Amino acid sequence: MESIFSKIVAGKIPCYKIYEDQNHLAFLDINPFALGHTLVIPKKEVNKIYDLSLEEYQNLMGVVYKLSKVIEKAIPCKRVGLTVLGLEVPHAHVHLVPLNTEDDMNIHNKLKLTEKEFLDIAEKIKLYL
Amino acid sequence: MESIFSKIVAGKIPCYKIYEDQNHLAFLDINPFALGHTLVIPKKEVNKIYDLSLEEYQNLMGVVYKLSKVIEKAIPCKRVGLTVLGLEVPHAHVHLVPLNTEDDMNIHNKLKLTEKEFLDIAEKIKLYL
Repeated sequence: MESIFSKIVAGKIPCYKIYEDQNHLAFLDINPFALGHTLVIPKKEVNKIYDLSLEEYQNLMGVVYKLSKVIEKAIPCKRVGLTVLGLEVPHAHVHLVPLNTEDDMNIHNKLKLTEKEFLDIAEKIKLYL
Repeated sequence: MESIFSKIVAGKIPCYKIYEDQNHLAFLDINPFALGHTLVIPKKEVNKIYDLSLEEYQNLMGVVYKLSKVIEKAIPCKRVGLTVLGLEVPHAHVHLVPLNTEDDMNIHNKLKLTEKEFLDIAEKIKLYL
């Protein structure tokens, strides 16, 4: 069965897109731990990030490197943290989270934003791409 | 001023070492979020992980890839998560944390282990290197 992220890749479920290339997609997490929280995924559906080949994983982490620098410029924060958990959605994904305190990475944070707020954040980040 | 991690690299502060190569060191976190929690650092002292060049960062993440697979074999868990926060120690480091629930990545978890327990965990992980 297609993962929810594969449905997003296929355009069957909408997302607030930040970045896309042939093998990767990045979009805003709709349950953000903090403002600007972005998910980066390989389009290839694998469960664990370490199910990617080393080359595929390095390519994904290269996108993470690039986007983290972009998000750090766009969103007021001390730095952009990253985390890979993956117990909830069985499609590898990297969380990029602008941090002002380490508690901004708390998985129990779920900010509620309006559609306009999501769109504004996505536009703001994309300005720095 | 040397970071605490540079002091560990220099051997001025002891650690429960898991892995070392020319540019990287991995050792057990002494305030583990969960059993087997390991830190991977570049020996080069940079504050943020994104202060590394893309090549240095890719090399570090390659070590993370390798060690995560090793730790997953050594420590009973559903998968090995990773996180980069970095607000506390200004020397880039990647946390590798064996996860059974996503709450095993909670930064407020600080397991108390004896020296023997740390040594046993380090030995167990190194068996799979």
